[in-house]
Amino acid sequence: MNGTTGEGMSLSVEERKLLAEEWISQGEGKLDQVIIHVGSLCIKESQQLAKHAAAYNASGIAVISPFFFKPQSIEALTEFLKEVASAAPSIPFYYYHLPEFTGVSLNVVELLDGIEKRIPTFQGVKFTSSDLLDFGQCVHKYKDRFALLYGKDELLLSAMVLGANGAVGSTYNYIGDLCNKMLTVTERGDFNMAREHQALVQEFIGFVNRFGFGVAENKATMMLVSGIPLGPPRLPLLKCSEAKQAKILAKLKILGILT
Amino acid sequence: MNGTTGEGMSLSVEERKLLAEEWISQGEGKLDQVIIHVGSLCIKESQQLAKHAAAYNASGIAVISPFFFKPQSIEALTEFLKEVASAAPSIPFYYYHLPEFTGVSLNVVELLDGIEKRIPTFQGVKFTSSDLLDFGQCVHKYKDRFALLYGKDELLLSAMVLGANGAVGSTYNYIGDLCNKMLTVTERGDFNMAREHQALVQEFIGFVNRFGFGVAENKATMMLVSGIPLGPPRLPLLKCSEAKQAKILAKLKILGILT
Amino acid sequence: MNGTTGEGMSLSVEERKLLAEEWISQGEGKLDQVIIHVGSLCIKESQQLAKHAAAYNASGIAVISPFFFKPQSIEALTEFLKEVASAAPSIPFYYYHLPEFTGVSLNVVELLDGIEKRIPTFQGVKFTSSDLLDFGQCVHKYKDRFALLYGKDELLLSAMVLGANGAVGSTYNYIGDLCNKMLTVTERGDFNMAREHQALVQEFIGFVNRFGFGVAENKATMMLVSGIPLGPPRLPLLKCSEAKQAKILAKLKILGILT
Amino acid sequence: MNGTTGEGMSLSVEERKLLAEEWISQGEGKLDQVIIHVGSLCIKESQQLAKHAAAYNASGIAVISPFFFKPQSIEALTEFLKEVASAAPSIPFYYYHLPEFTGVSLNVVELLDGIEKRIPTFQGVKFTSSDLLDFGQCVHKYKDRFALLYGKDELLLSAMVLGANGAVGSTYNYIGDLCNKMLTVTERGDFNMAREHQALVQEFIGFVNRFGFGVAENKATMMLVSGIPLGPPRLPLLKCSEAKQAKILAKLKILGILT
Repeated sequence: MNGTTGEGMSLSVEERKLLAEEWISQGEGKLDQVIIHVGSLCIKESQQLAKHAAAYNASGIAVISPFFFKPQSIEALTEFLKEVASAAPSIPFYYYHLPEFTGVSLNVVELLDGIEKRIPTFQGVKFTSSDLLDFGQCVHKYKDRFALLYGKDELLLSAMVLGANGAVGSTYNYIGDLCNKMLTVTERGDFNMAREHQALVQEFIGFVNRFGFGVAENKATMMLVSGIPLGPPRLPLLKCSEAKQAKILAKLKILGILT
Repeated sequence: MNGTTGEGMSLSVEERKLLAEEWISQGEGKLDQVIIHVGSLCIKESQQLAKHAAAYNASGIAVISPFFFKPQSIEALTEFLKEVASAAPSIPFYYYHLPEFTGVSLNVVELLDGIEKRIPTFQGVKFTSSDLLDFGQCVHKYKDRFALLYGKDELLLSAMVLGANGAVGSTYNYIGDLCNKMLTVTERGDFNMAREHQALVQEFIGFVNRFGFGVAENKATMMLVSGIPLGPPRLPLLKCSEAKQAKILAKLKILGILT
Repeated sequence: MNGTTGEGMSLSVEERKLLAEEWISQGEGKLDQVIIHVGSLCIKESQQLAKHAAAYNASGIAVISPFFFKPQSIEALTEFLKEVASAAPSIPFYYYHLPEFTGVSLNVVELLDGIEKRIPTFQGVKFTSSDLLDFGQCVHKYKDRFALLYGKDELLLSAMVLGANGAVGSTYNYIGDLCNKMLTVTERGDFNMAREHQALVQEFIGFVNRFGFGVAENKATMMLVSGIPLGPPRLPLLKCSEAKQAKILAKLKILGILT
Repeated sequence: MNGTTGEGMSLSVEERKLLAEEWISQGEGKLDQVIIHVGSLCIKESQQLAKHAAAYNASGIAVISPFFFKPQSIEALTEFLKEVASAAPSIPFYYYHLPEFTGVSLNVVELLDGIEKRIPTFQGVKFTSSDLLDFGQCVHKYKDRFALLYGKDELLLSAMVLGANGAVGSTYNYIGDLCNKMLTVTERGDFNMAREHQALVQEFIGFVNRFGFGVAENKATMMLVSGIPLGPPRLPLLKCSEAKQAKILAKLKILGILT
């Protein structure tokens, strides 16, 4: 999914289509699901990307709120999402809630009320916000009906205890083992053990936040950990400096995440 | 404690002293602890209140950050707190972290690093912020040494799972039973049952937030539930309207909090 | 220019090209200048639009900062703008400063320092922000070298007195006469008379701001005043309600802007 | 006036009274007016200070909005101000609008509508905000009735052109000459010459803002320029560092403000 781990929003429509095709074809037989993010400031481009994803048999599509002109009400947001979803009526639709980036912080629980009547393919939410009051209400009312996937890695345990039924995040690319362990023990109700895992994640994120940690830094970290060359970020992002990389590397080693 | 449940910050120094005396004398034999909030924009008044609290045998004192002129660094905040604490060197000192009101959101975990050398009476934090990344780090590093009391009622479970060792909040005046049940089951590790209790609290707070819920509304709710006349709030707060009170009452009944 | 008067950011790349072509061809012989906004979250699309504008003999191009991933420094912003400008090296380049929409509030005066070495076609700034400290410094240092066009209609006089050498704004579509009078008297130094004109504009904008005035409302107002059918806004914007339109119309009449 | 140049809000009630007495007695025969700031989080203390100021023949009193509990409406703010003003019914009352510090940004023009019926001693506003849309409307509607004193030194010219009838600010303690020249030329309508003076002020403030300029820094600057020892600021403010002082001094010399 090209959201805030990748740089989907910095790509052209054509590039986004190519990338979607590649993920879908590479994922076949290896990944359970490939959900394509098709959000755009332009609803027509969003619809075009939605159609394309469906044609290539994506498992589903996800959409963030437009954020230059911002929807001023739940009604306006629902209307926008509905028009995109209706361009790919055969595959599941997810709302990707990302207020730190979009500035749109309309309550998700209000969006969910009655949404299946407006968007029959509605399947769930990727909820990337620290507003656990909103998230908790979503889970309580809708966890049997919708997927409620939590996206703030440093708060995952606090969301799981409220009943999140999944997680999607950036740092899982290199601290996925840690998180999987956390999810496993959480599933069997062992929140006390889960806490130890969450603490490591928090210490890492708390550390990197102090000197600025965005997509460029996350990308550099993924390279450091995986050894896979990912190339520099695209403008307006600048490459993560060597000095920052060294600090990140040192911290990963201290925490035992990298050996 | 006169913080944001009460209206301590709207009282004169003399009134605050009288109120402290009253709580301490009424609490004798009935309350485990009476901690007096002695924060003030004026450090001398804060010291005066601290001395007074100690003279009247308060169990401890708590201080929020000054918030007209704001400390610009951990160093400045520590220095301020130290000067207040040193006026009452015989009783425990708590930092009351309340960034939504003070606008001071310096990381608490950084404040705690080495604080016992600067403030020998330092005992803990009342943490009233939704920043669970900061809170989680505090708990992980310091829960054996300091009291880490969580103060956002609607996020209590999410804080408990990180290891909070206590809770202080406004709504506990009327949904305390609910919260006590939640804490009990949490203590024995039953986070799944705790979730049901937290959901009720979230539904109440989510509901009242939509039409504005501050100290005036909280006060009205306490009166509705307890039947104890508490009087109107002091200016600049206006009395909670009858219409709002009716909505709150109806919701409390629907949720089964009031019968 | 399709910025925040029009809905350029809600259009596809193809639509933006068509619109640019239309403005350029319709403007021939009628408009002094047609400057095409070519900003995009995707630098490649931005470059493509820049090339297109140059090929169609636009008078210049303008670019807002990308705002999903945001430039974290003057260096990153300059680098982004430079890459776009270099795709249309034969026509003037303008930076369009729009922090209320982009969330990028890097000081423009720092951007301008030495920019002609990085971007040889750099010609000026459309400055749509109420930060008159920044704007005043831009004007003082650079008004002989660059065009410094002010874009907050309600603060135009306050910017003119600092030496702005032009203005671009949304409401000029219907209160342009008023503004032209203001500019004329300002040019001959009669700021006292200018004040009366500015007061009318402020009363209008102050009034509409109280009930929400965005692109949809501005569009409706343009229709009301000009009689030209402009169609509904595109999602996520909803059509301005009849009730709002009636209020706007009444106010325009009271102020004598519409008769 | 002990507002944000002085540290009135960090003083105890007793200290504030002593300071008021001193200003009034020292000012006799030397200052046209001595207006005492009597704002407080506690309305009773505010009333006490108002009475005291009147008893000592202050020229007037000024009050900022309370800012721990914040007035939620014009009605609540008016009610608070009215109760303070009524404690000193014989002397003029000013509202001191300071949203950057108080977080209360209710529109002043709405406060002024009909205020003389609620507060018979109401005399004017010290308006310290960059919201020139609000200020312009205040001036247009009320400049014949109320004093509308502008308080953002770096934007003074932009406010004067709208018709401000006075100015109060911190930097006037050392760049007062510059500002007086600006006001003189402005009065005779020579806004073009005024611009040169404003530019110097903007360059100074723009420069110091980049490395943080608050009350501690302003105090150090006043000492540098006047040679009068003013002592260190009170906690939570820390003393301006030597390094910062050196930078400020160098800038004042470059700009010709200090020789």
